[in-house]
Amino acid sequence: MSTNTQLSNIGEFGLIDRISEKVSNGKGVITGIGDDAAVTELSPGMQLLTSTDMLLEDVHFRLKWHDPYRLGRKSLAVSISDIAAMGGIPRWALLSLAIPKEYPLEDLDAFTNGFLSMAAEHGVSLIGGDTCSSKSGLVISVTIMGEQLPQNILRRDGAGIGDEIWVTGTLGDASFGLELLENKHPEFENQHMENNCLISRLLDPTPQTTAGRILAESGLVSAMIDISDGILSDIEHITDLSGVGGIIHLSSLPFSDSFRVMAEKLLLFPFNMLLSGGEDYELAFTAKAGNREKISNIMKKSGIPASPVGIVTSLPGVTVLRPDGTPHLLQKHGFNHFK
Amino acid sequence: MSTNTQLSNIGEFGLIDRISEKVSNGKGVITGIGDDAAVTELSPGMQLLTSTDMLLEDVHFRLKWHDPYRLGRKSLAVSISDIAAMGGIPRWALLSLAIPKEYPLEDLDAFTNGFLSMAAEHGVSLIGGDTCSSKSGLVISVTIMGEQLPQNILRRDGAGIGDEIWVTGTLGDASFGLELLENKHPEFENQHMENNCLISRLLDPTPQTTAGRILAESGLVSAMIDISDGILSDIEHITDLSGVGGIIHLSSLPFSDSFRVMAEKLLLFPFNMLLSGGEDYELAFTAKAGNREKISNIMKKSGIPASPVGIVTSLPGVTVLRPDGTPHLLQKHGFNHFK
Repeated sequence: MSTNTQLSNIGEFGLIDRISEKVSNGKGVITGIGDDAAVTELSPGMQLLTSTDMLLEDVHFRLKWHDPYRLGRKSLAVSISDIAAMGGIPRWALLSLAIPKEYPLEDLDAFTNGFLSMAAEHGVSLIGGDTCSSKSGLVISVTIMGEQLPQNILRRDGAGIGDEIWVTGTLGDASFGLELLENKHPEFENQHMENNCLISRLLDPTPQTTAGRILAESGLVSAMIDISDGILSDIEHITDLSGVGGIIHLSSLPFSDSFRVMAEKLLLFPFNMLLSGGEDYELAFTAKAGNREKISNIMKKSGIPASPVGIVTSLPGVTVLRPDGTPHLLQKHGFNHFK
Repeated sequence: MSTNTQLSNIGEFGLIDRISEKVSNGKGVITGIGDDAAVTELSPGMQLLTSTDMLLEDVHFRLKWHDPYRLGRKSLAVSISDIAAMGGIPRWALLSLAIPKEYPLEDLDAFTNGFLSMAAEHGVSLIGGDTCSSKSGLVISVTIMGEQLPQNILRRDGAGIGDEIWVTGTLGDASFGLELLENKHPEFENQHMENNCLISRLLDPTPQTTAGRILAESGLVSAMIDISDGILSDIEHITDLSGVGGIIHLSSLPFSDSFRVMAEKLLLFPFNMLLSGGEDYELAFTAKAGNREKISNIMKKSGIPASPVGIVTSLPGVTVLRPDGTPHLLQKHGFNHFK
């Protein structure tokens, strides 16, 4: 295909054909792309999990930082993460795109390839969507559907007083990556940063579907959420909906070697990124304190790190404590649109 | 609530609370708005139908013509229409909104009220969505889910040679309404046009869920589609996917009294609006010629008009014939983005 081909040459139906040619229908898909609605079938006894996310150019992403392939991957990853947070098995996705007329077709192909690579990694079939022209920037809207047995589905409102608060993986990497992209650091002027681990976590996050499903099916977890707005803000969703509060121990928050090394290079230690940095897409969950060893064993066996970072209390709100037991002053508290 | 309240005052979570307060969970909803994903349950034996549509300011609608209440209604109606086209029963919707910071909160309330009024009329529960700020115009993305027994689901690819082509209701009204809005006609300078029937069909379309379901459950229909791009373009989707062709009789196309009266006033008869006018959201379907009387009777009993307008043939493509049997020259053929 010539790189001179324009979106305006192939038209709306040409674009849909171009995408659907690359799609294969997976589990539960009866009729995929091409009819008024997709037809799918849930596995026996399972309930349907559905979530949707909208991503706008220059609000959620910048094309100067985000190559189209990884943008395609991330567009689906953030939605798959919501299914992981419920302990669900992701199945089907819908992709809507509003595309500026001048957007290069080869970038659109790279975007689609990225989207479909993420889909393949998590067993997701693209079953439909919508395409139209945009007068002002790329707009991406993704709906994800998954399934799980009713007794295994984990919600935000199940945390009990005395439960331990856990997180998978490490926190703050994506936020530190954003810092590196947004604020030029002279230390790195001549380095290729595209493949820096912290920046990769921002541009190409991994949804924790395996961890989510293992935890859900273990029966040991009382509440779960994915960390998209920072652990502090997201744990507060759990405690608020569960009618409880929480304490997070600053010294227990897990961070990566890349995070530590970069913090040392820059002579700062950004606690606010660990606490309130968004887009980690790890899972935060609560479980009875007596389950600590069982959970540690399950996670070790699966090769997925998880750390206890705090405890559920009866006092409303979430408090962060320093190692000496004094409260840590909070600088920033999640991200809020319209502010 | 004071009309001085701004979106920036209530924030993202305030907006979500404001919408979810108005929502009641209907059939099949286990967990609605407020968790990482909604949890729903299909009726026994039913398959899931899913479709999504994205609507952009100044691409799909203009705020100067579209009051927010009817815009909210239409945003959901166009998606419900896709479920109707499959013969499905609409159940659940997700609504994503990218909103300019200066968009008035009272307009947002009117939009939401409109959306929820359409939902209530068709038994649809709003179960989730996404909200964010937009730097350039209102963006609306709706995903609709419905259900139906496998044997009743109607697709586009089932038309057989010799089948008759039918349409519900009347064609071209929405397109004529758009003409009245877009091109000032001195005849109507001093008239309030907001409630003109043709304009109402454009701004507040009715998805044909009852007709769709009755036709699907009758077992008499071979293929179905909703008319969003004009009957000519939409019937061609059926014939292309069914590997057949079609003839449409110009003199059989149904139009409303409002359409006729307006055509007489303007001293023109816009055949192209009947054939290629978009956004009617009627249903086009095919059925064995021997089923004509049965279909007429079923539709009459239900109070829904339906007319046979043509026939499925073996020659590829769709031809429009005048009463004298000569082909009608086509001026326009549906709407295509990116052109």
